[in-house]
Amino acid sequence: MKKLNISAILLMAISLNISFTAQSQEHPNLIMTKSGVEKIRQNLGKVPLFDASLESVKQEVDAEIALGIDTPIPKDFSGGYTHQRHKLNFIIAQKAGALYQILQDEKYAIYIKDMLFQYETMYKTLPVHPQERSYARGKLFWQCLNDSNWLVYMSQAYDAIYETLSKAERDKLENNLFRPFADFISIGNPKFYNRIHNHSTWGNAAVGMIALVMDDKELLDRALYGIEDDGLPIGGIDNDGGTIKVEGQKKGFLANLEDPFSPDGYYTEGPYYQRYAMYPFLIFALGMHNVKPEMKVFEHKDNVLLKGVDALLNLTDADGEFFPLNDGQKGMSYYTASLVTAVDVAYHYGSQNPQLLSIAEKQNKVLLNQAGLSVAMGIRDGKSTPYLKNSINLTDGQNGDQGGVSVLRYGNEDLTLVFKYAAQGLSHGHYDKLSFSLFEKGNEVIQDYGLARFVNIGQKGGGNYLPENTTWAKTTIAHNTLSQNQQMHFGGQYKVASQHHSELHVYDVSNKNVQVVSATETNAYPGTKLQRTMALIKNPSFEKAFLLDIMKIISGTKNQYEMPFYYMGQVLSQNFSYESPEVLKPLGTENGYQHLYLEGKGQAAANTSQFSWLGQGKYYTLSSATSTSDELLLTRIGANDPEFNLRRDAALMIRRKDTDNTSFVSVIEPHGSYSPVSELSLNSNSNIKQLLVMHDDANYTAVSIEDVKGASSLFIIANKNASADKQHTLPVAGKTYKWTGVYYFSE
Amino acid sequence: MKKLNISAILLMAISLNISFTAQSQEHPNLIMTKSGVEKIRQNLGKVPLFDASLESVKQEVDAEIALGIDTPIPKDFSGGYTHQRHKLNFIIAQKAGALYQILQDEKYAIYIKDMLFQYETMYKTLPVHPQERSYARGKLFWQCLNDSNWLVYMSQAYDAIYETLSKAERDKLENNLFRPFADFISIGNPKFYNRIHNHSTWGNAAVGMIALVMDDKELLDRALYGIEDDGLPIGGIDNDGGTIKVEGQKKGFLANLEDPFSPDGYYTEGPYYQRYAMYPFLIFALGMHNVKPEMKVFEHKDNVLLKGVDALLNLTDADGEFFPLNDGQKGMSYYTASLVTAVDVAYHYGSQNPQLLSIAEKQNKVLLNQAGLSVAMGIRDGKSTPYLKNSINLTDGQNGDQGGVSVLRYGNEDLTLVFKYAAQGLSHGHYDKLSFSLFEKGNEVIQDYGLARFVNIGQKGGGNYLPENTTWAKTTIAHNTLSQNQQMHFGGQYKVASQHHSELHVYDVSNKNVQVVSATETNAYPGTKLQRTMALIKNPSFEKAFLLDIMKIISGTKNQYEMPFYYMGQVLSQNFSYESPEVLKPLGTENGYQHLYLEGKGQAAANTSQFSWLGQGKYYTLSSATSTSDELLLTRIGANDPEFNLRRDAALMIRRKDTDNTSFVSVIEPHGSYSPVSELSLNSNSNIKQLLVMHDDANYTAVSIEDVKGASSLFIIANKNASADKQHTLPVAGKTYKWTGVYYFSE
Repeated sequence: MKKLNISAILLMAISLNISFTAQSQEHPNLIMTKSGVEKIRQNLGKVPLFDASLESVKQEVDAEIALGIDTPIPKDFSGGYTHQRHKLNFIIAQKAGALYQILQDEKYAIYIKDMLFQYETMYKTLPVHPQERSYARGKLFWQCLNDSNWLVYMSQAYDAIYETLSKAERDKLENNLFRPFADFISIGNPKFYNRIHNHSTWGNAAVGMIALVMDDKELLDRALYGIEDDGLPIGGIDNDGGTIKVEGQKKGFLANLEDPFSPDGYYTEGPYYQRYAMYPFLIFALGMHNVKPEMKVFEHKDNVLLKGVDALLNLTDADGEFFPLNDGQKGMSYYTASLVTAVDVAYHYGSQNPQLLSIAEKQNKVLLNQAGLSVAMGIRDGKSTPYLKNSINLTDGQNGDQGGVSVLRYGNEDLTLVFKYAAQGLSHGHYDKLSFSLFEKGNEVIQDYGLARFVNIGQKGGGNYLPENTTWAKTTIAHNTLSQNQQMHFGGQYKVASQHHSELHVYDVSNKNVQVVSATETNAYPGTKLQRTMALIKNPSFEKAFLLDIMKIISGTKNQYEMPFYYMGQVLSQNFSYESPEVLKPLGTENGYQHLYLEGKGQAAANTSQFSWLGQGKYYTLSSATSTSDELLLTRIGANDPEFNLRRDAALMIRRKDTDNTSFVSVIEPHGSYSPVSELSLNSNSNIKQLLVMHDDANYTAVSIEDVKGASSLFIIANKNASADKQHTLPVAGKTYKWTGVYYFSE
Repeated sequence: MKKLNISAILLMAISLNISFTAQSQEHPNLIMTKSGVEKIRQNLGKVPLFDASLESVKQEVDAEIALGIDTPIPKDFSGGYTHQRHKLNFIIAQKAGALYQILQDEKYAIYIKDMLFQYETMYKTLPVHPQERSYARGKLFWQCLNDSNWLVYMSQAYDAIYETLSKAERDKLENNLFRPFADFISIGNPKFYNRIHNHSTWGNAAVGMIALVMDDKELLDRALYGIEDDGLPIGGIDNDGGTIKVEGQKKGFLANLEDPFSPDGYYTEGPYYQRYAMYPFLIFALGMHNVKPEMKVFEHKDNVLLKGVDALLNLTDADGEFFPLNDGQKGMSYYTASLVTAVDVAYHYGSQNPQLLSIAEKQNKVLLNQAGLSVAMGIRDGKSTPYLKNSINLTDGQNGDQGGVSVLRYGNEDLTLVFKYAAQGLSHGHYDKLSFSLFEKGNEVIQDYGLARFVNIGQKGGGNYLPENTTWAKTTIAHNTLSQNQQMHFGGQYKVASQHHSELHVYDVSNKNVQVVSATETNAYPGTKLQRTMALIKNPSFEKAFLLDIMKIISGTKNQYEMPFYYMGQVLSQNFSYESPEVLKPLGTENGYQHLYLEGKGQAAANTSQFSWLGQGKYYTLSSATSTSDELLLTRIGANDPEFNLRRDAALMIRRKDTDNTSFVSVIEPHGSYSPVSELSLNSNSNIKQLLVMHDDANYTAVSIEDVKGASSLFIIANKNASADKQHTLPVAGKTYKWTGVYYFSE
C-alpha cells in the first residue's frame, strides 16, 4: 500500500462534507465495473449493436496485436509517425482492456501488460520531447496535452488488467511510469495543468483517472482541486495565444467544469473544442461516479455535463457536423469517438432520452461498457425516436451572462441560422462579434471559414495551427459580420476582447414562421454600437424560408464599413454592373484583407442589389437594400498565401464609406434546385422585387419586402425595448402600425 | 385512311429486300404493345419495383393534371419558363399515356387529348421561335432539336390513346399538328435533319415515331433514309461550330446509326452525348422492333445499339457518373431517365444480362412497359448480379479504325484511368489528343474540365454553351495533355482536327497488376510526334496502385512544351521551391492561356520533382522526372472570366523550353487517407524516392521507380513494335534486359 497523505484526505473530506472510509477497491471500477462486465457477458450474442461493436473492436485490436508493439523514441509533431504510433497505442490499449474484461481472453491482458512495461522501461529515462513549439512540452508527445490523452486512456487499460498483475508488477508500473507521468504533467507543468482551459481539463482528468485506479488520494486531490501553489506569474501566453493565468484564477477539474460551461451546457471555446473536452469531462465523471458516487460529479452545476451533451448535439447541422464557431475544423461531427462516449454516457447515466438512441443508431457503434450495452439494448428494443433539433438559445459564460449562441431552425433543418453573440471563447476565439452562418440541411449557404489548420497533417505546419489562423481565420473580415475601417473587433487584441461579450436583445421563436434573434455589441469598435437582428421568415408567397438580416450601426464618427457574405457556390447573376480587373491584387495589407483578392468591383443598385448563386444543386439570392453610393466587391480568399494554406472561397462584400449611422439590410433567400442528372432547373429566380428600409432610428427599424408579384410584407423591430408586453406605435409610409412585443410582421 | 405513297413503299420494300403488306395496325404498338399491356395488368401488385415505378409516375402525372394544362406561346431559351413548360408537357404526356394503358383510367387519355388539341390549335399558326441563336430554330423551342424531342415523346402519348379517338379527331391532329410538325423539322429544316449528328438522330426518330403511329410510309421512309435531295451546300456550320454537310454525306436514321457508333458501341461525341442520343436510337429501334420486326433494327451493325448501352455503362466512374470526355456536363450519370430506358431495353431485348439488373436496382425505377416489367421481375426473382466494370478498350469511328478510348481499372474501381486517343468527336469534340483523367472510386484525382455550360440554367447564357466553352473548355491547355508553343492541337481548327485521329500502339491488360495502353499522335502538331504510354501498376511495396505516365515527344524543331495536371484538392507539400507573385496575372492571351492565373512559378528539382495534395480525404503525390531547367507552374482557372463562368480549379504545369525530343515522365500515386472525424492522417507521404528516365530513344523508353526504402522497379516500353511475341534486348545502366512483348516490368 502506498502511504496516504492524511492531511489531504481530511481536507478533502471536510471540504466536501463527506465521510471518508479507507476501502480496498475491486477492479475494474473506472469505466467498467465488475457487475457491469457480468451483465455484458450475460447478454453477449443478444444485443446486435453491442455485438457488432465488440466484433469491430476485436478485429481492430487483433490486427494491431498481430503487428506487434512499437513504442518508438518520440520525435515527431502530430502529423508524424511517432506521434501517431503512441496515439494509436493508447487507443488500442484501452480497447484491449475492454476486450479482456468482456471476452476474458488473456492475450489482451498480456498485450497491455507488455506495452505498459515497454513504456515503463522507456519512460524512466525519457527526456522532454525534442519539438520545442509547445509552451508545455510533453515527453511522449510534443505537448503535455497529448501526454494527458495517453494517461486518460492508459488508466482505463491498466484498470482492466489490474487484477492480473502481481503487486510487484503494479508497484513497478506505478512507481516508474504512472506516478512520474502524472507528476510530470501536473507539478512538472503547472502552466499547463493549473489553467481554466481544455488543456488543463485533460491534465486534471488524466491525473484523476490514474488516481482512481491506484486509489491515490493525493493525486485525486490534485486532479479535483489543482496545484495549491503553482508559482505561476499572472499573465503568460501559450503557443496558441491564450492567457495562462489571470488574477484569482481557479484550478482543477471541478473549477474547469464550473467555468467554461454555461448553465445551458455551452462550452465557451465552441463546439469543436467542446467535442474534444467532453471526453475527459465525461470519462472522469464516469470514473468518479463509479468510485466516488458520493461526490455526484454528474450532478455538478445542475447536471451541466449531461446538458453539455445536448448542447453539443444541437450545435450540429443536418449531417451531424459541428458548426465551426471559433477554431473548428470542418467535417468534425457527432460520428467521432468522443461523441459515442458522450451519447452513451448521457443516455445511461442521464434520463434515458430515447432521442439519443437515434444518434447512437447513426453512429452505428457503442461503448464496450454498461452505458454502451444499455444504449444497444434500447435500440434493440425499438425505443429509439428521432433526435429533434429545434431552435435553441445557448448562453455563454459561467453564469450564463456573457452573451451566447442562437440557432434558429426552420422545418426539419431546411434552413438553419447560427448566430454568435458570445464571449471571446478563450484562446480559440475569433474576432467576430454578431457573425453568422447559414445552412440548408447539411450544406453551407453562407459559410464560417473555421480554423486554418490541417489537424494532424504533418506536411502542413506539423499539423498545428498555421500562421493563417491568426492572419486570416481569426480576423473580423474573415467572418460574416461588420468590419469598420478595415480593423478587427477589439483591434484584434485578445486581452481586450476577453473582457467583453455581446448582449442579447431578444430571442423569440414562439412563432415558427417568424423566428427572431437580436443582439448588440458596443465594445468591438469603441464609439460604435452594433445591433444585429436576424429573422427566419416563412412567408406563404415564398417557396422556402428566408433569412432577414438587419445590421444596425450607430456611431459617433464617420467610418468605412464592410459587410461580407461568404456565399458557397458559383455566381449565377446579379442586377448591378461591376468591373473585373485584369490582374488580381490583395484588397489590403493587414487584418485579413491581405488574404483577399478583389475579383470584381461594382456600384450598387439604386435600392435593391441582388446577387444569385448556385450551390450544391440549390439556388440562392442575396437581396440587399443599397444606394448607388455603396460599392459591391467580389472577393476571393488566397492572396499572400504562398503555401496554399487557405481555401479559394469567395464573398460578396458591401462597402459603405464615410457614414456614421446606417443599417445593412439584406435577405438571403434559398429557392429552387438544379439537378445535373435530370438537368431540370426549377425556380431559379428570386421572388424578391424590392427590399426597402422604411424606417430606421434608435428605436425602430422597419423593412419592407416586396415580392415579384407586387405583394409586400413589413417587418419592424423595436431596437430598444424587448419586452413581450410593451405596446408600440409607429407610422410607416403614411400608415400607423400598432403592435405588442418586440417585433411586428405582416405578410 | 391516308393516301399511301406507293412508289416510296415499293422503293423501300425493294431496297430492304422485304415484302410489304398493307396492314391495319392495332394500338398501342410503339413502345407498349397490346399483349405487353395485358401482361403488365396481370402482374400489377406482384412486382415491387414495377409497382413502385407506376405509383411514382402516377403521383407525378396526377399532380400535373391537377395543375391544369398550359401551352404557352414560345419565347424562352432553355432556362426559361416556356421552354421548361413545353418540355414538361411532352414528358408528362408520355407518362400519362402509359398510365392510361395500364390503369385504363380515362382521365389520362382525356388529359393527353386535351393537350394535343391545344397544341393543334396553336401549331397551325405558330411562327418560328423568336430566339435566333440556333442554326435551325424550332417552333415550340428555340431549336428544332427540342421540337424533335417533343415529337418523339408525343408520338408515344398519341399511340397510347389512339384508339380512344375518333377518325375525325385523328385526322385533325395528324393533318394540323403531327404531319406539319414532322415536315417542319425535316423538309423544313434539312440542315438540321439530314446530318450525321445527334440532332439529326432526334429528328429522324421523331419523324419515324410518328410515322409508325400514323402508319405513314412516306414519313417512315424519310425517317430511315433522310431527305433525298436536301439542296444543302457542302460545308456550313451550326451554332456549336459543327459542320453541317460534307461530301458524300449519308443521311437518315440508319446512316446515323451506322456512322457515329464504332463497332464497340462507342459514340464519337462522347458519353454525355451518347446518353442523350441513346434515347431516340433505342426508342425508335424499339418501335421498329414492335411494328417492323422484319427490319431488325436492334440487330443492325452486329447489335451495335445494345453494345452501345454496355459501352455507355462502362464509361462511368464508381458513382455511375459519365466521364466528361469532350463536351460533357459533370454529374450526369446512369441515374438519368434515358439510361433507365437503355438498361431496361438492353436487358429485355438483349440477352437478359443479370448484371444490368443491378444497375436497374440502383436506378430504383423501371420503364412502364414490357421491358420495365421484365427488369422488375428479374430483380424480384433475385436474378441481379453486380455490374462488373473491367478495363475496356473502345474503338472510335464507324469501322473502329479511328483511335479510341481506353479505360484502365485497378481493383473495384479503386483507380480508374480514362485515356483518350480518339477522333475529334464531331462538333462536341475537344482539342485534347492523348489526354487523360484519373479517378479513385467516384472521385476525380486528375480532372477533365468537361464543358463550360450550365445546361438549362437561363441565367447563364440562356442555358446554352458559354463563350468559355470555346475559349477554355475545348482548348488543349484545358486538358491533361501536351501543349506545344502554347498552340492548340490542329491549331484549334475543327476541319483539320476532323480529318485525323490518334493511333493505338498497344492495349494490354492481361496482367491486372501492370495494365498498359499506348497511343501515338502525329497530326496535332505537324512535325511533332507524340506517343503517350500509360500504365496502371500495382507494386507490392506500394499501398495502392499508381499511374505511370510517359509522354514521349519527337520533333523536328525546338519547341516550348507545357504539360498540365489538373489535380483536385488542396496543396500539401512539394520538394521544389517556387515564387508566389504579389498580383495574379493571366498566363497568356489566347488558346485558353488567357483564362489561367499564375499562382506560383518554380524551378524543378534536379531529378525528381514531387508535389502532393489532399483531395476528398485521400493523399496523392505527383512525382515527375525533371531537370533544373524545367519550370513548374502553379496555375488556377479564372482569369478573363468576368461572368464567373469557370470553376476556380488548379493545375500543376511542367514547362520545358527550347527542346525537340524529350519525354515527360510522371507517376501519380494515391496513398493514405485523412478523416476530419477521426482526425487520423494515414500514410500521407509518397513512397517514391526517385523517378528516373534510364533510357529514351525512338525504340525504347525505360523508367526506374525507386521507393523510399531503396527498392527499384523498372518499366520499359517498346515504342515501335507492339507485337506480343517480339523479343527485345536492351542494356540499361550496365545490365542487359531481355523480354518478349511490348513492355517489360520488374518489381
